[in-house]
Amino acid sequence: MLNIAIAGLGIVGAGVVRLLRQNAELIAARAGQPVAIKAVSGRDKNKKRDCDLSSVDWIDDPRKLASMPGIDVVIELIGGAEGVAREVAENALKAGKHLVTANKALLAAHGVALARMAESNKVQLSFEAAVAGGIPIIKTMREGLAGNRVVSVQGILNGTCNYILTRMGEAGLSFEEALREAQQRGYTEADPSADIDGHDTANKLALLAALAFGAEPDLASVQIEGIRRITPLDLQFAHDLDCRVKLLGVARLTSAGLEQHVGPTLVPQTSPLAQIDGALNAVLVRGDFAGDLMLEGAGAGAEPTASAVVADIIDLARGHRVPAFGVPAAQLKKLTPAHATYTARYYMRMQVMDKPGVVADISAILRDEAISIESLLQRGKSATESVPVVITTHGANAKSMRKAVDKIAGLATIVERPCLLQIED
Amino acid sequence: MLNIAIAGLGIVGAGVVRLLRQNAELIAARAGQPVAIKAVSGRDKNKKRDCDLSSVDWIDDPRKLASMPGIDVVIELIGGAEGVAREVAENALKAGKHLVTANKALLAAHGVALARMAESNKVQLSFEAAVAGGIPIIKTMREGLAGNRVVSVQGILNGTCNYILTRMGEAGLSFEEALREAQQRGYTEADPSADIDGHDTANKLALLAALAFGAEPDLASVQIEGIRRITPLDLQFAHDLDCRVKLLGVARLTSAGLEQHVGPTLVPQTSPLAQIDGALNAVLVRGDFAGDLMLEGAGAGAEPTASAVVADIIDLARGHRVPAFGVPAAQLKKLTPAHATYTARYYMRMQVMDKPGVVADISAILRDEAISIESLLQRGKSATESVPVVITTHGANAKSMRKAVDKIAGLATIVERPCLLQIED
Repeated sequence: MLNIAIAGLGIVGAGVVRLLRQNAELIAARAGQPVAIKAVSGRDKNKKRDCDLSSVDWIDDPRKLASMPGIDVVIELIGGAEGVAREVAENALKAGKHLVTANKALLAAHGVALARMAESNKVQLSFEAAVAGGIPIIKTMREGLAGNRVVSVQGILNGTCNYILTRMGEAGLSFEEALREAQQRGYTEADPSADIDGHDTANKLALLAALAFGAEPDLASVQIEGIRRITPLDLQFAHDLDCRVKLLGVARLTSAGLEQHVGPTLVPQTSPLAQIDGALNAVLVRGDFAGDLMLEGAGAGAEPTASAVVADIIDLARGHRVPAFGVPAAQLKKLTPAHATYTARYYMRMQVMDKPGVVADISAILRDEAISIESLLQRGKSATESVPVVITTHGANAKSMRKAVDKIAGLATIVERPCLLQIED
Repeated sequence: MLNIAIAGLGIVGAGVVRLLRQNAELIAARAGQPVAIKAVSGRDKNKKRDCDLSSVDWIDDPRKLASMPGIDVVIELIGGAEGVAREVAENALKAGKHLVTANKALLAAHGVALARMAESNKVQLSFEAAVAGGIPIIKTMREGLAGNRVVSVQGILNGTCNYILTRMGEAGLSFEEALREAQQRGYTEADPSADIDGHDTANKLALLAALAFGAEPDLASVQIEGIRRITPLDLQFAHDLDCRVKLLGVARLTSAGLEQHVGPTLVPQTSPLAQIDGALNAVLVRGDFAGDLMLEGAGAGAEPTASAVVADIIDLARGHRVPAFGVPAAQLKKLTPAHATYTARYYMRMQVMDKPGVVADISAILRDEAISIESLLQRGKSATESVPVVITTHGANAKSMRKAVDKIAGLATIVERPCLLQIED
């Protein structure tokens, strides 16, 4: 009998309870022992929840779950990098309980400290549910690809953003309209900024990069850009360029160090990531022996996330122990961040006054930064108003590209700061 | 130090040696101990191989590897359900050595007996490399989705067939031409029949079904059809129907029992499986909580397969122990095979004499079997020769459909036995 306590009974917590009850027999057979929910803690005891909590102790203070006698595993589903969630996690590990968490923010901020704590207390820290919901990408990277030197990992890690970008592309909605639709469908938090500004993706990317490269998660060095500036026009231009726009998290280890960036990206139609629509998530890992491996599935929601939490619980019941980030915490490297040292192709959308010489000015700036133009697209024509112009470049140094954007933004004939997207090859 | 012995030094065996050497340091860190190749056995000691075998014992008879002192793990890469491969595997388990194998035929035929043997000798039987090469689908189903009741699993599990069908579709090649191209690229065995007649896919499907449903692998009840009868015309018709043709292995648990079939299938363009081209493999699993999860990647080749073998080795070094098929062998169910009890949509291509009344005859046969026609397509027109006609049906009982095909094949106006493909929804 494996006895668990659940801290946090939001939609994911209730989903975990449902799954453990609904598939109890099957889970016991696979786990080698029954899994029993001994105690739970949520914000409001009287709230109606879509799960059966009979014969389960209700504990008001989740921080006390770890000290309850007979508990083997604490499941932390509260969320947030600090505060109660962190205390619940630390209390559990210090008390010698295994910790299962879906908390990407906590892990990205304090993953190494928690992994050390788990190791010194000889318990397991598991976080399959923290990245990409029902997609078992943590296990895949930590175990399935363990023989590989990972070259890169990239993913569509936020279903809300992918839904918004998909709807903008297929229905021509504005960003605001698509966001409203996502909110109506329950895809977003009350405050959607963590999703649409890319921070949620950055947390997940930092965890994937840690697993990929055997390094400490380094959230601070992730370059982050959200999707607020994307317009339906970008989706149209992307279409003309045989691309889709996706909010991509990309981590690569180059000779300059660890490159991690999150931002809306032009993905060629031929890439498997271009096919991932709606609220789906996907992760593409390139290993030196496995080659390209892509996983796609439900990245959020009560059921898929519960599936990931319960997979961790079954692993624990089976006695599976593995360092949280694949190698012992003391061996995790501190990689040098490589900020914009890489070369990429770019898409730059500008709103320009339709006057002679504008393109010459822009071209000169690019030439001075040694950036060569691949294509120039223009939509519409107007004597008085501004028109959108898109330039795509050949491979350009990321730093030079940003310098060029700064200069172009300063031109009198440019109406607003250019919108710069990377083109993924 | 984990000491391994490798039986079989073909391209996969050499790939495993290369991987263990090339990534030795990284593997030792992740495994928690170095992995040492102590002994190998291959068919010809003097053959030039693309790997470094210095300081490794060469053993002529692979069956003797298990009894060598100091060996912890035997890696069986010989292949074949019987003979030496089976003896190597059984010797290893009986001698209390862990067994890692890439041998789908062995597992599909004797998996339960081997799993029992492993359990009674308290060692691990691992076979990640047996299905879909570098894609960690065994681990995903056995562990990543362990909380789920699996509804269905379907896959493109043979890269050779997928390559042939892709080339027939994109270049209009005949089956024979595409096969020749696959052979020239080294995608096929000297005798390609195991690939193109669907037996390789059936072996893999039987293993996936066993993991999905907690059942003994039941290769004998897999309905198997290969791709020899597919013509470029089928690819064209499929295109007109917004579908692609894929050799699919499908396993489902229905109220009638376990349904397992392998055959060329029309996959709608909207299915993620439709996008899998060339020699790639992909597996789509539907879980009751995780929803649809798809994995795609390299299904064959030295490097990807070595990646899977080494993942199993690292798991062993980490002390990971899990029943071969997810639950102890004694608990594996014997499921009743459900032969053609299901309902599916069908595509039937007929070569008919272009005479009045032919369609009426066919329609009457279908009506008598309670099968309703969804569409009828015809290509070309000829007074003297036969023309191809394609009928697609609404949902039809599989048994009735086959009965109808038998009757239609008996019509005097039908030139050859109709080609029947299922349409996957």
